[in-house]
Amino acid sequence: MNREQLFTVIRKKSSFLCIGLDSDISRIPQHLQKTGDPVFEFNKQIIDLTHDLAIGYKPNIAFYESLGPKGWESLAKTMDYLGPLREDLFLIADAKRGDIGNTSRQYARTFFDPAAAGLDFDAVTVAPYMGSDSVEPFLEYRDKWTILLGLTSNKGAYDIQLRKVESADSSAHHLYEELMKESQNWAGPDQMMYVVGATKAFRLNDIREILPEHFLLIPGIGAQGGSLEEVASYGMNKQCGLIVNASRSILFASAEKDFAKAARKEAERLQQEMKELLEFHL
Amino acid sequence: MNREQLFTVIRKKSSFLCIGLDSDISRIPQHLQKTGDPVFEFNKQIIDLTHDLAIGYKPNIAFYESLGPKGWESLAKTMDYLGPLREDLFLIADAKRGDIGNTSRQYARTFFDPAAAGLDFDAVTVAPYMGSDSVEPFLEYRDKWTILLGLTSNKGAYDIQLRKVESADSSAHHLYEELMKESQNWAGPDQMMYVVGATKAFRLNDIREILPEHFLLIPGIGAQGGSLEEVASYGMNKQCGLIVNASRSILFASAEKDFAKAARKEAERLQQEMKELLEFHL
Repeated sequence: MNREQLFTVIRKKSSFLCIGLDSDISRIPQHLQKTGDPVFEFNKQIIDLTHDLAIGYKPNIAFYESLGPKGWESLAKTMDYLGPLREDLFLIADAKRGDIGNTSRQYARTFFDPAAAGLDFDAVTVAPYMGSDSVEPFLEYRDKWTILLGLTSNKGAYDIQLRKVESADSSAHHLYEELMKESQNWAGPDQMMYVVGATKAFRLNDIREILPEHFLLIPGIGAQGGSLEEVASYGMNKQCGLIVNASRSILFASAEKDFAKAARKEAERLQQEMKELLEFHL
Repeated sequence: MNREQLFTVIRKKSSFLCIGLDSDISRIPQHLQKTGDPVFEFNKQIIDLTHDLAIGYKPNIAFYESLGPKGWESLAKTMDYLGPLREDLFLIADAKRGDIGNTSRQYARTFFDPAAAGLDFDAVTVAPYMGSDSVEPFLEYRDKWTILLGLTSNKGAYDIQLRKVESADSSAHHLYEELMKESQNWAGPDQMMYVVGATKAFRLNDIREILPEHFLLIPGIGAQGGSLEEVASYGMNKQCGLIVNASRSILFASAEKDFAKAARKEAERLQQEMKELLEFHL
């Protein structure tokens, strides 16, 4: 899915909601635990009742990986299930991978090349600590997206991302800002996005000066406490430019048999708010 | 395995060699490709002929993950096979994971809790871009090790790690140095190690000023061109304090049926050099 297609889906659905499939098996309702594949059954029902409201899904790989081989099977089955809906969905592997080139190449294959692990995501999140050559192998997939960690929603963001660094013009900027500038030499807004936590929404103004055209992936709405209205005010551009993710607040809106209905209700609430924000800002 | 036990193994084997099980299926010899699990068969033969020379093994998770569920099975089988040898081996999951606390907790379970994915590593490599609270869940396993990326061997190290940042005393230090200082508030040398690439060996003197007691995991010998002698001169401390990893130069020393023998020969060459360096420096 390219940038224009993504914007088309956003307009069509009046939504920029991505649902994070952080399908923690310990929080999946009791009645599904007896099925052969509780994680897949859970995802299936969530998808059935939310796919018209969401522009994408973002499985967080940790929740699958921690179940061993059968977790990876649940993930592959979820991706297969999403197959017929793909035209209107942007699928992100939230994996936060990154290693030297030789190894990053394997990680890129994992999530982008169906012949490798049976997965065919549109995008993968990448950790930038190891620099350009650790990101390049992901960018070699020209029709796919690399979503670089920029400024994350957690308090640990102060340890590295918000450090002041010396820059070329000898003024001091935050490290994440320098990264956002520098990494534009690696790829443009048709292939790269950045993660910016919703809890740091007040910084989106400055970020838009550096990245006017890029899509930003914004986690931190819901359980982490970020404000959707602030994110839209400071972060929206002419093509929306925002993919806002919510995970736990949707997935675990109810712990009972009505979990998927409760998830839909919460997704609908967010989508309605997004619809209004799109009408107001675009 | 605690720090004292690790040093005991180093003395017993006169070695600080870790073998990176970057078992790239496309480079595994032809005659093994017909077996049911080529990656495991390959690892098994490598382990059989090298475990007396190595103090540990470091599977690089990317090479297993990119094979889907069956790759994770090969990894679990490799760990099971290493089981009876564990008393004398330090086992590192080279995964470079890191996410917000909620998610890092799942990654930590994956590699440390056998009840999760069937894996029971001594250590896991962690990417620090998201800061302290992304690392904490790994540190909650008190009898396990967290190996933080410090200064890596690739050219991309200049993009973030070697940026000059403002520090408390208003002088400018490299970001990786600030990280090495700051992260000592997260855990001490009995639970934390750092990755320092062998290609940056000349910086080990300065790193030892910051981290006199810590073990350092040093990749980049062999295929990446780092010098073992330099690493030992600048980096060895009283407990050795070094785990030097070699992967491709050992695993793929031969592409034929004699691959394990060729691997042993290369491992032996490195171990002999290490033996001399241990005698000289300790």
